[in-house]
Amino acid sequence: MQNNSLLKEMGIGLKAMENLLSQYIESNSPLLTEASLHLFQAGGKRIRPAFALLSGRCCGVDSNSMLPLAAALELIHMASLVHDDVVDNSFTRRGISTVKAQWGNKVSLHTGDYLLAKSLLLISQYEQPQVAKIIADVSVEMCEGEIQQIATAHDPGQTIKDYFYRINRKTAMLISASCRLGAVVSNAPAVLERALARYGHYLGMAFQIVDDILDLTAEQKELGKPVGSDFRQGIITLPTIYALRHSQKTGVLESIVRNKSKTEEEIQLAISLIKDSGAIEYSFTVASRFINKAKKQLQHIPLTEHQEALASLADFVQNRRF
Amino acid sequence: MQNNSLLKEMGIGLKAMENLLSQYIESNSPLLTEASLHLFQAGGKRIRPAFALLSGRCCGVDSNSMLPLAAALELIHMASLVHDDVVDNSFTRRGISTVKAQWGNKVSLHTGDYLLAKSLLLISQYEQPQVAKIIADVSVEMCEGEIQQIATAHDPGQTIKDYFYRINRKTAMLISASCRLGAVVSNAPAVLERALARYGHYLGMAFQIVDDILDLTAEQKELGKPVGSDFRQGIITLPTIYALRHSQKTGVLESIVRNKSKTEEEIQLAISLIKDSGAIEYSFTVASRFINKAKKQLQHIPLTEHQEALASLADFVQNRRF
Repeated sequence: MQNNSLLKEMGIGLKAMENLLSQYIESNSPLLTEASLHLFQAGGKRIRPAFALLSGRCCGVDSNSMLPLAAALELIHMASLVHDDVVDNSFTRRGISTVKAQWGNKVSLHTGDYLLAKSLLLISQYEQPQVAKIIADVSVEMCEGEIQQIATAHDPGQTIKDYFYRINRKTAMLISASCRLGAVVSNAPAVLERALARYGHYLGMAFQIVDDILDLTAEQKELGKPVGSDFRQGIITLPTIYALRHSQKTGVLESIVRNKSKTEEEIQLAISLIKDSGAIEYSFTVASRFINKAKKQLQHIPLTEHQEALASLADFVQNRRF
Repeated sequence: MQNNSLLKEMGIGLKAMENLLSQYIESNSPLLTEASLHLFQAGGKRIRPAFALLSGRCCGVDSNSMLPLAAALELIHMASLVHDDVVDNSFTRRGISTVKAQWGNKVSLHTGDYLLAKSLLLISQYEQPQVAKIIADVSVEMCEGEIQQIATAHDPGQTIKDYFYRINRKTAMLISASCRLGAVVSNAPAVLERALARYGHYLGMAFQIVDDILDLTAEQKELGKPVGSDFRQGIITLPTIYALRHSQKTGVLESIVRNKSKTEEEIQLAISLIKDSGAIEYSFTVASRFINKAKKQLQHIPLTEHQEALASLADFVQNRRF
């Protein structure tokens, strides 16, 4: 990836976005500043801002004009994380303690609301009313995805279609919006806007599938959170859905999935049943299919250099192991 | 109030806003629709939309143009209520069970986020970037107010200045914005925008002070929630701050305030000490002063009919008993 000058430039843009963000989340309330910075400094892949900066460049916008939007997208993502931690009772994320673990539910909830409000403030800088509208639409869908996740928890009967519905809302829509907004801000032609939106959608789907695979296969120290943490909470992801149909012990797996207070032993047994069923290989294949669909959209991107950079990001999404 | 044709018209506008809102909060997710409608149908005074509609009329905007904004303001208020219930462990509000009591923390949190996202969608309809900016600014300050409330809980040392800081952020700023936005949407002259913003600010301060008085003096059936519920949670309001300095048993009151697990007996004792100290009369006097300041701003409103309607609303805020 290092050979592409555009990706290097994007790295510089991301640093600038991080600088902006770390200053921007300072609040009059020391507690809000501290909690927000704690979350921010825990790191993250910053893929939403990366996509926004890159898509902006593909459409001829300079990075500076995209910075507030890139920061806003990261803030929306951060807000969703801190709110998830409230309701999921998560105590570690990205290897360090969560805001909830350190400051409790009340502070976490208001920190999430604060980050959302700050993102709105950044978004209100843009002239195009489409910018706020796209982000609002995605935010609505993200909530619907979260609620769907609650409604389908511990349910072994859910289908791959249910899963796709959920991860589209939970992840792909915001990544798609990140890609699309570069085109919107630059008033790019509709065909370019559509191609970037679709590229982002397919990549976002692949990103979440890989995330769900890694949740079962990575090491705790790479994940920064306990292995199988989704499974523990009853969130049924693609590998589990596959294994529930193809494992040699579907009955055992199904009863563990249904059980709302699984023991550690049951969780470990379930994870090995899932791995033995071929579910991991299957899920990687599905992710690859989405990556290929994403890459096909790149034919609508005018410059080869831009195409290559976006293809590199797609490869990164497919091959990441953390 | 019934004699003023503008207030009658506002009543019709509020009905239209309620119709819009009840359709608008319908979601693809039945659970989100149900939880949002439950909150909406519990009622409320709808004062933020009322102020927005009225201020719009004062500046010559027709009610229809203000409707989405009026609905957005109510949604932001509803979102803050449902999020408060999550962290405050409240089980009744406005006389019926809270979303939290009925569906639990996860659904409440995401319902709040959903209502915020829906409000953003309504706001994005307005051309003036000021609209989103004002609302984002207020939302940031609201979070800072909530955090301040957490930081000062159970602290008998806090001052009236601390209290004013908090209720400004918690309540007055959104009411002020509701009044101001009518002027913004109609591109009214700055002097009118400022007068409406200040009118809303003073009225919002009075509104919250009266709310805090009623929390201690009203009947549970009028309040729709237990008497003294703020006091129970350690939220120190104006009457308590006054009584902590003027009660004949300040020591007793102070130790109850500090106690994080107050018994019902202690709560009742504290409430009677507060009432006996003259704190209620004092607080009403402070509220009246804000009402008078609000009314003074009305000299900048061009039409007498509009002045009268806004003065009536100020009287309502001062005299309400529920």
